[in-house]
Amino acid sequence: MSVHTVAVVGLGPMGRALASAFSEGGIRTTVWNRTQARADALVERGAVRAETVLDAVRAAELVVVCLRDDQAVAAVLEPAADALRGRTLVNFTSTAPHQSRTRGEWAARHGIGYLDGAILTPTPTIGGPGALILYSGPEPVYQAHRAVLATLGGRAEYVGEDVGRAAGYDAAVLSLFWLSILGVVHSLAMARAEGISGADLAPFAASITGLLPEMLDRFARQVEADDYPGGISTIASASAGLAHLTESARRLGFDTAIFRASLDIVERAVDSGFGADGLARLTDIVARPTAESVR
Amino acid sequence: MSVHTVAVVGLGPMGRALASAFSEGGIRTTVWNRTQARADALVERGAVRAETVLDAVRAAELVVVCLRDDQAVAAVLEPAADALRGRTLVNFTSTAPHQSRTRGEWAARHGIGYLDGAILTPTPTIGGPGALILYSGPEPVYQAHRAVLATLGGRAEYVGEDVGRAAGYDAAVLSLFWLSILGVVHSLAMARAEGISGADLAPFAASITGLLPEMLDRFARQVEADDYPGGISTIASASAGLAHLTESARRLGFDTAIFRASLDIVERAVDSGFGADGLARLTDIVARPTAESVR
Ligand SMILES: NC(=O)c1ccc[n+]([C@@H]2O[C@H](COP(=O)([O-])OP(=O)(O)OC[C@H]3O[C@@H](n4cnc5c(N)ncnc54)[C@H](OP(=O)(O)O)[C@@H]3O)[C@@H](O)[C@H]2O)c1
Ligand SMILES: NC(=O)c1ccc[n+]([C@@H]2O[C@H](COP(=O)([O-])OP(=O)(O)OC[C@H]3O[C@@H](n4cnc5c(N)ncnc54)[C@H](OP(=O)(O)O)[C@@H]3O)[C@@H](O)[C@H]2O)c1
Repeated sequence: MSVHTVAVVGLGPMGRALASAFSEGGIRTTVWNRTQARADALVERGAVRAETVLDAVRAAELVVVCLRDDQAVAAVLEPAADALRGRTLVNFTSTAPHQSRTRGEWAARHGIGYLDGAILTPTPTIGGPGALILYSGPEPVYQAHRAVLATLGGRAEYVGEDVGRAAGYDAAVLSLFWLSILGVVHSLAMARAEGISGADLAPFAASITGLLPEMLDRFARQVEADDYPGGISTIASASAGLAHLTESARRLGFDTAIFRASLDIVERAVDSGFGADGLARLTDIVARPTAESVR
Repeated sequence: MSVHTVAVVGLGPMGRALASAFSEGGIRTTVWNRTQARADALVERGAVRAETVLDAVRAAELVVVCLRDDQAVAAVLEPAADALRGRTLVNFTSTAPHQSRTRGEWAARHGIGYLDGAILTPTPTIGGPGALILYSGPEPVYQAHRAVLATLGGRAEYVGEDVGRAAGYDAAVLSLFWLSILGVVHSLAMARAEGISGADLAPFAASITGLLPEMLDRFARQVEADDYPGGISTIASASAGLAHLTESARRLGFDTAIFRASLDIVERAVDSGFGADGLARLTDIVARPTAESVR
């Protein structure tokens, strides 16, 4: 058993990408998946099939897990806790910060070295220059395995001892991912409903996507300074557009819950006296619970 | 009275930008605003103050209006309908497609030439190369005034005879604007709650904003082809991230309505049997009414 043997538990699209990268990086790779057939192609290209999770864990000093969610991790790894004792577990399953922290405590109780990994880029990037992976947990554990983990390619960043920190970054990035993807989705749906093709819309939509990087930096500075100048566009003025957008969506027979939730955020900002502020002020508003949200 | 006299009704930030651009473009510009003082700086730089809306309308063959919303347009211009007869009205107030069409019918009934304008870029762009303005309505009316309107700078696009079409583009672009802005806002709020500064977050968030232009083009092609390959990332797999994100937001005491609305869209896609499809499939899902949205 050497550090150059890695076990990969979970062979969904991401687990397979991780196992391929290790295997092609010359690292002896043992693989296991609930549905065994997903290991076939990897085994043909040199990975070793483990018949059980226990076999996979026992084959390696470094165990990498990548399952759908923390519930799947509990189902698969908790019965293998004794076998994991003394080994290192790197968890690439995308989880919430509190779940990562709880998983880290579980690992510590069982004498398992633990790192939480957050993969911020899609499967095709793994093993290549485009990968972006964050790690958090005990720094000595990271240092002991960073060379092997570097096989996964791209940019690896150790973000701190707090096990939940990588997941914290992930949650922030996922918020941006999901809401902007739903922006793209609604934009195309709205265009189609108005008889406008995606090709016709694209050049105009690009005027928005092109603004976002600068806007994120500017909003970040305003949040840091706790100062939200209204200058170019105020919350009150922009809210009129959101209101008629919501009404347009309703008339088109769309599901409008996401627009109503958006309008509600903006209206609470105006009601709180921030109508003349810039849109970055909304960061304060969304971080406040509402009667509804604490249900 | 010549076509080289323009009246600008409404002097909020956008109305002032429009009036400045006309005025600096050498066009005789008459201005009116409910709150008179907002005209002062423009008048100092050569614009002519009208004491009443009627005076403004009578001073020009081309009347440009830019107010908060269609209600404000009704309040200000409906009493001036007779004076507008035989003139051209270009409405830059941001309105929903159905509002634009109704306003176009109102104008037609009163013998007013009518164009609906949608300004897709912020005030500092007006008069310069960065402006992007769409027009819809009768093409002869557009052709008669396009030279004067070109004073507003940048890119002007005539998008069709249907008066509501410019507003249709606007609604599609606004959907993208609002949801991606709220993505930026939630991303920064979530990071702050997890003790991550905007400066620390920015490089990772850039990995998302950088993806959007390509993603919009790809989703547009998939919508056009009505084919949503799951390939890189399926709705079912991505939904796990959204679920734990929603739970993280709840634990942080955030208003979670926007995440719950997002998760609801994704879950309806999975329930409809589209879990193995790519995210662009969601365009179909959001365009369907729910029991809640037709209330
Ligand atoms: N795909 C991406 O681009 C991407 C990017 C960043 C992060 N991630 C994260 O990586 C993780 C894995 O994602 P994925 O894309 O590989 O696919 P996925 O569909 O999220 O997960 C599939 C894996 O989870 C297993 N699984 C699910 N429930 C299970 C259970 N109760 N017991 C045992 N195994 C269970 C599946 O086993 P079976 O094969 O037997 O069903 C399979 O190995 C997720 O947390 C995802 O958020 C993915
Ligand atoms: N600002 C931008 O970057 C931008 C970009 C694209 C589109 N737009 C659109 O342009 C339009 C104007 O926006 P804006 O930024 O100039 O500011 P705004 O705050 O949306 O509108 C201010 C103007 O509306 C007037 N107004 C509001 N309610 C009125 C009423 N009941 N009766 C008479 N006048 C009324 C205000 O008069 P008082 O001064 O007397 O209050 C002022 O002239 C909006 O539809 C906006 O969506 C703006």
